Amino acid sequence: MAKSLLLWTLKASDATLAVTEVPRDDDVTIKVLYCGICHTDLHIIKNDWGNAMYPVVPGHEIVGVVTGVGGGVTKFKAGDTVGVGYFVGSCRSCDSCGQGNENYCAGVVLTSNGVDAAHGGTATKGGFSDVIVVSEHYVLRVPDGLALDRTAPLLCAGVTVYSPMMRHGLNAPGKHLGVVGLGGLGHVAVKFGKAFGMKVTVISTSPSKRQEAVEHLGADDFLVSRDAEQMKAAAGTMDGIIDTVSAWHPITPLLALMKPLGQMVVVGVPNKPLELPVYAIVPGGKGVAGNSVGSVGDCQAMLEFAGKHGIGAEVEVIKMDYVNTAIERLEKNDVRYRFVIDVAGSNLGSAA
Amino acid sequence: MAKSLLLWTLKASDATLAVTEVPRDDDVTIKVLYCGICHTDLHIIKNDWGNAMYPVVPGHEIVGVVTGVGGGVTKFKAGDTVGVGYFVGSCRSCDSCGQGNENYCAGVVLTSNGVDAAHGGTATKGGFSDVIVVSEHYVLRVPDGLALDRTAPLLCAGVTVYSPMMRHGLNAPGKHLGVVGLGGLGHVAVKFGKAFGMKVTVISTSPSKRQEAVEHLGADDFLVSRDAEQMKAAAGTMDGIIDTVSAWHPITPLLALMKPLGQMVVVGVPNKPLELPVYAIVPGGKGVAGNSVGSVGDCQAMLEFAGKHGIGAEVEVIKMDYVNTAIERLEKNDVRYRFVIDVAGSNLGSAA
Repeated sequence: MAKSLLLWTLKASDATLAVTEVPRDDDVTIKVLYCGICHTDLHIIKNDWGNAMYPVVPGHEIVGVVTGVGGGVTKFKAGDTVGVGYFVGSCRSCDSCGQGNENYCAGVVLTSNGVDAAHGGTATKGGFSDVIVVSEHYVLRVPDGLALDRTAPLLCAGVTVYSPMMRHGLNAPGKHLGVVGLGGLGHVAVKFGKAFGMKVTVISTSPSKRQEAVEHLGADDFLVSRDAEQMKAAAGTMDGIIDTVSAWHPITPLLALMKPLGQMVVVGVPNKPLELPVYAIVPGGKGVAGNSVGSVGDCQAMLEFAGKHGIGAEVEVIKMDYVNTAIERLEKNDVRYRFVIDVAGSNLGSAA
Repeated sequence: MAKSLLLWTLKASDATLAVTEVPRDDDVTIKVLYCGICHTDLHIIKNDWGNAMYPVVPGHEIVGVVTGVGGGVTKFKAGDTVGVGYFVGSCRSCDSCGQGNENYCAGVVLTSNGVDAAHGGTATKGGFSDVIVVSEHYVLRVPDGLALDRTAPLLCAGVTVYSPMMRHGLNAPGKHLGVVGLGGLGHVAVKFGKAFGMKVTVISTSPSKRQEAVEHLGADDFLVSRDAEQMKAAAGTMDGIIDTVSAWHPITPLLALMKPLGQMVVVGVPNKPLELPVYAIVPGGKGVAGNSVGSVGDCQAMLEFAGKHGIGAEVEVIKMDYVNTAIERLEKNDVRYRFVIDVAGSNLGSAA
């Protein structure tokens, strides 16, 4: 493997190109096998946030096989099955990094459409690609025995719900977890909750999802959030709630479902502020917290847990040439529950 | 001491009175020395919540001396200096009680204008009184050496900020605490924060409070919340925030002051819902939690801590005959920082 990356770059506006050598002793070269399609990819593809750096290569739910490693790599070798998630770099010197919370580092380098300052400041290219090169510090080991297509979405959707469940103690047998929204994130939260030995209740606006939630995913109970009587009967019963809904919705009825000191975690990102009446949290000492994916450590622990309990996402595996149709369907939430691209099994074609 | 309370009560609507014997083996009779005036008293006096049960006797920040105990009392004896806080009873059988969180028991009996089911369902009478009788389980020991007038407000205002500081880890040397609002609760939060060895920054709408905060109360820094530049310069520096403000206010600029995983605790009760933009909590994994007073254990621990560090509220001590004027001044926030009634030193008069 190359020990460094040689880039001819403009240092200033005098238009003189000069070579920059970027060490890459710690890089792992990965042949991409599967890559999930996340709602964040949709936002980037549609440039909803106005920050797309073209050419954009989406994809941050990556499972692949190591094909080569830099001279300084100690944790991986060719042939290893590995994963790459939402980010591929961080400053490694701030408090967040020092505490093992790289996902909260201000200098976090997103896997797709991120700014990779250490590699010349170029935009990162994600997993919709035959190969990806990532520093070993941000590569995850995939345990044996997991179905690789079903594992890909765990790298983002999975850790996004697993990490706050661990942080807020929503991982203990006998506790009661509410999961709001049964999509890419919610359905994995149900699986983790059951694997932790918890009672899990799905809360949804769609009564039609009851059967799926209870019979297929193993939830213990199901509440229609618009049914005030059902909601009232369940008041004060839950230890915590993972709210995965990205559309604006009232959270007061959800907060009422929790016991005193209950913790609700928001992982969806509605674009209007949530309404938080203080009477809904003060008398019971309840909390609402945000969460953004998880650390490298969280992600590795999540994969080990998934391996132990045989947890995988429910996926619809597609080939690369179906991706634009999949994006259209994803916009309409027409997927059960995650599209995963069989990258290695696709004809990636040649550029037009 | 009497071993029981004999009450002639109506059991049903047939108008036949019969005697009910209520055991009171665990009662402690307390001569009230000092009683603080809390904003909650103001709400009850004005019947803001429409739940006043007349005759109302306010007062739940009580320090007194034990004058007698029931036969079953083991923790207190005549002559002990004790405190009584926001509540004087709880069910003692629910999960919250079992976990030592009596303040979150659905059957909590408030000290003033509460419903005391175990004593015939009568409304409880608070500390604006020469004597109060309280089950020993809800009586606190006041450590030697504390100024009793300055201790009274700790029983509610003090524990309301101390308890969440302990719960959320906002009690470690070197951490940075923000305190929003410099009133009855906020000024005590500053004192606790400094005693924990923290850096404490007061955040207020009133630039005029800077000198008081820094020079008198020992805060390390002061931010004017309406000064966008000051707020921006302090972004991402705080481990947590205690927000004591009861008027509606935007919390997004406050959330921005916190580091990743920072925890904001709301102890005031604005009557309009707070606005919680999800982007203010998801990217940093931040949290907003409510808190209502503290448990019996929290309150005792808080008093011990106050005793060790010589912490007391800043008070204006008044006699009973000034109470109606004090209530008027409290409505205008015209007190620095808590009125405390010298009950034992007042002529309580005779009923008109």
